[in-house]
Amino acid sequence: MAVVAKGLEGVIVDTSSISLIDGQAGRLYYRGYEIRDLASNASFEEVAYLLWSGELPTASQLSGLAGQMSKQRPIPESVTNLIRSLPASADELDVLRTVISAIGTGSLLTKPELSEAIAITAKIPTITTTFDRIRKGQKPIEPHPDLGHAANYLYMLTGKDPDPVKVEALNKYLILLADHGMNASTFAARVVASTRSDLYSALTAALGALKGPLHGGAPGPVLQMLQDIGMPDRAEGWMREQLKLGNRLMGFGHRVYKTTDPRASILKEIASQIEDKGLFGLAQHVEETGVRLLKEHRPEEKLYPNVEFYSALLMHAVGLPTDLFTATFAASRIVGWTAHVLEQAANNRLIRPAVQYTGPLEREVTPLEKR
Amino acid sequence: MAVVAKGLEGVIVDTSSISLIDGQAGRLYYRGYEIRDLASNASFEEVAYLLWSGELPTASQLSGLAGQMSKQRPIPESVTNLIRSLPASADELDVLRTVISAIGTGSLLTKPELSEAIAITAKIPTITTTFDRIRKGQKPIEPHPDLGHAANYLYMLTGKDPDPVKVEALNKYLILLADHGMNASTFAARVVASTRSDLYSALTAALGALKGPLHGGAPGPVLQMLQDIGMPDRAEGWMREQLKLGNRLMGFGHRVYKTTDPRASILKEIASQIEDKGLFGLAQHVEETGVRLLKEHRPEEKLYPNVEFYSALLMHAVGLPTDLFTATFAASRIVGWTAHVLEQAANNRLIRPAVQYTGPLEREVTPLEKR
Repeated sequence: MAVVAKGLEGVIVDTSSISLIDGQAGRLYYRGYEIRDLASNASFEEVAYLLWSGELPTASQLSGLAGQMSKQRPIPESVTNLIRSLPASADELDVLRTVISAIGTGSLLTKPELSEAIAITAKIPTITTTFDRIRKGQKPIEPHPDLGHAANYLYMLTGKDPDPVKVEALNKYLILLADHGMNASTFAARVVASTRSDLYSALTAALGALKGPLHGGAPGPVLQMLQDIGMPDRAEGWMREQLKLGNRLMGFGHRVYKTTDPRASILKEIASQIEDKGLFGLAQHVEETGVRLLKEHRPEEKLYPNVEFYSALLMHAVGLPTDLFTATFAASRIVGWTAHVLEQAANNRLIRPAVQYTGPLEREVTPLEKR
Repeated sequence: MAVVAKGLEGVIVDTSSISLIDGQAGRLYYRGYEIRDLASNASFEEVAYLLWSGELPTASQLSGLAGQMSKQRPIPESVTNLIRSLPASADELDVLRTVISAIGTGSLLTKPELSEAIAITAKIPTITTTFDRIRKGQKPIEPHPDLGHAANYLYMLTGKDPDPVKVEALNKYLILLADHGMNASTFAARVVASTRSDLYSALTAALGALKGPLHGGAPGPVLQMLQDIGMPDRAEGWMREQLKLGNRLMGFGHRVYKTTDPRASILKEIASQIEDKGLFGLAQHVEETGVRLLKEHRPEEKLYPNVEFYSALLMHAVGLPTDLFTATFAASRIVGWTAHVLEQAANNRLIRPAVQYTGPLEREVTPLEKR
């Protein structure tokens, strides 16, 4: 009997020199650098440069990239008009997927290029904040050419000079989420790129995958859960009820980590400094209760808080609306997606697995009138 | 050393009861029915019903589906306006990807539903022909509610009553290409659906993958090759030159078939009846020459004409412009994609493979000013 690797857990689909996840030890490295070191000592732009090129930039390389990104931030009038034409109630990821797909109609099939990766990375915050302003009946804010990537993102939400503490927190978030091995959205992008399709096609696939609640769609629901629980002494009852109903607890568990997700630890530290004390205290209590109940409920699995759990708090604390959480995840992961697509294109083989057929055999078509 | 399954060749990612490919014998079955039997005895709508539900429809079930599809053919004014806003030079697949993504913004995250699959299948020819008319400066033609799916597709291209012989040929093409196991676009759709994302997200991924020249992007280039060769006695020299330059011969070889693709045989029979005799003769000569040269050039592989080879001739003969060939492939494969997404959603596991890291290890971030 053939082995069916449903979900492809543990199946190694390729080699990659982009990121390394040590799921047992709870460590994550980009190009050999541990993420805590990067989050403490680098900007998002430096990390993007690293993920794309393999090396951290020198000061002049960094200013070159920052200049290129700043120049690429504005979106053409036609893109703003497209955003205006979409429903105000649209999902943030549906908007990104549609707009990036539309931008892709402007060029014929081309091999993915770093310059395209830079341009799309630069534009994602502009697309997202433009949509957010338009759906609220506000005028979109032009990107600020002199601000860094994280600062400009917050600036375009409100038009106000962003608080440096919040900028720093968002910068760290954008670094921490920028790549994570062969996650489902990255893999979707690589499958598409493997047919020698273009970067925009690969990115629309990645955005579609990120939207799903088993992947990037969780931070909003985590915040919702905290709001539903409301206060610490209601946590245990609420969570026991969910488990009894067979529901998943949002923000716990990960395919790869069998211990605390290292990103979750760093995000928790940041959230502890900037989030409202009451909400942070509640989150900590919910985390501890969740880990304890899951140990009791599913002792064979090791379920710890994942990256979504404290992502939700951090994004809330920096002032992002809940319905832009997944788009903000995309604003970070776009770097990993594009790095992976460039890696795939440089050494490509069509990704075309097999499937085990389990349906009926050897039937004959009966004419319609005799069925 | 861990095994790296680059390209996932032979890796079985799931079970499925939709289609069975026997690559050694050169046979293809949908839900247990051989495709030749279906192409000879059924309409596209019957085969769509079969792929979606597992059973061929009764006469009343078929008329129910046909009615539903006919009702779903028109596209709203907002979609026509979106098509108008895209460049006339846009790639046919970029247009479909963007329009279907935009249609998806109209609903929030929902579990994939058969009714959505039917609606999108019904609309693809309308989207494609509307784009074709608009880019040519012509007025789009409203779908004809009383024509079958294949007939209405041809009708919307020109507004003229289509030739029944061409309708029948296109109907067979649409049947033959409707599903093909875990091909790259179907797999991309399932990866996206495995995050519990929605049908539109999965379909935009599939469309992006189909665009690539290693997948659905080949029939146009096949016709181009035939036109470049021009006459039979130039075939051998032209093809030897391509092989010497290290180029792939378009329309030959397939990951799964180690003999003639059964779809290619049937498409060839149809093309022999309806295509211009000169072009068909040239194609036959190019096919024979290609198989002979490839046997000489890459004796270890078994390279035969694939489905793209005679697809190109059939689509040309029914009057489709070359730059709608891949969109026509999508108009057929949409049935397989949606059937697979529904199957994935019914018994889901997140598709999240692993990767072997081959980059540098344990580096330390040097401060920017010291780099």
